[in-house]
Amino acid sequence: MAVTELSDLELVKQAVLSQGRVIGNDILKVDSFLNHQLDVDLLNAIGRIFHEKFGHLAIDKIMTAEVSGIAIAAIAAQYFKVPVIFAKKTLSKNLDPDTWEGTVYSYTKKQTYQIRVAKRYLTPGEKVLILDDFLANGEAIKGMKQIIDDAKAEMVGSGVVIEKSFQPGASLLQHLGIPVYPIIQVESLDNESISLK
Amino acid sequence: MAVTELSDLELVKQAVLSQGRVIGNDILKVDSFLNHQLDVDLLNAIGRIFHEKFGHLAIDKIMTAEVSGIAIAAIAAQYFKVPVIFAKKTLSKNLDPDTWEGTVYSYTKKQTYQIRVAKRYLTPGEKVLILDDFLANGEAIKGMKQIIDDAKAEMVGSGVVIEKSFQPGASLLQHLGIPVYPIIQVESLDNESISLK
Repeated sequence: MAVTELSDLELVKQAVLSQGRVIGNDILKVDSFLNHQLDVDLLNAIGRIFHEKFGHLAIDKIMTAEVSGIAIAAIAAQYFKVPVIFAKKTLSKNLDPDTWEGTVYSYTKKQTYQIRVAKRYLTPGEKVLILDDFLANGEAIKGMKQIIDDAKAEMVGSGVVIEKSFQPGASLLQHLGIPVYPIIQVESLDNESISLK
Repeated sequence: MAVTELSDLELVKQAVLSQGRVIGNDILKVDSFLNHQLDVDLLNAIGRIFHEKFGHLAIDKIMTAEVSGIAIAAIAAQYFKVPVIFAKKTLSKNLDPDTWEGTVYSYTKKQTYQIRVAKRYLTPGEKVLILDDFLANGEAIKGMKQIIDDAKAEMVGSGVVIEKSFQPGASLLQHLGIPVYPIIQVESLDNESISLK
């Protein structure tokens, strides 16, 4: 019997459906492969999908945000052959004082916080691709776009592994002129089961 | 004239010496390639060096800690063909309540904090390699070792990209039976210049 090799997209879908754990109606835990434990084969499949989507663009740098975007962006960057810059959530003595800042509202903590990129690592005219793990309310991507705009760089695309389509982020960002490409669209998490679009 | 290709170790050394920025006598900023902006070619060189050192061991999993270890561990894991688990610094609704905890003292903030790994991702008998960016006071690695011990897993090795040899971490950990392999040993940061061992 012939063994059919799964496409990268099928691999990611299967991982979400078989390993994703639903808590209530809105939390999808994918910590077995995406944001606590990391499955590097799957991260490579994700990187190839992003590269297939955005590889034709002249991208200078991939931007993501602490913490969950880092591994995704680093593995994907191998296909684009560009550096990654990740926006930092916490001030530290290791971060330059001279930074671009983006404001992010946390719905969980009901407060805003700043994400920061050292000015020396984002220069005017640079073409930036934003990658992240989830798109829910769109706050992280909005914050990164703010940083890119302030630096007079150019956001040439934006992609996430999982869009929670039942949350307002995708349409909110679309409205702001920031279309986001999702690898997987989760339509609902009702009854603790995962429905994909 | 023949062009000599640099070894992976030379590449990493050159990056530290040419791109590292010294602040005072103890801060070495390598945020152009290691912990803010990420140079994925260099991370691959680092991954290959770790694999050359530890690849003969039967490693089941690579462990690191938020934030700066994530990209290093994810890229290195491609050579080992094992998953990564990264210890989390912040509690979130995305983290299981059932965790192993390690205590880390922050000399910068003069307080302790907990790093956590969900129990489901670390099982008794698993052979774990710890990788991190810096070894200074040894607190992060000590905290990860505590997690591995509590889970009755086994730490089979530990490696860092940069050891700050003028700080007590390496000898402190050696004393606790946790030898750490450093790719680069920084002997001093006196007068804003970097001296390697």
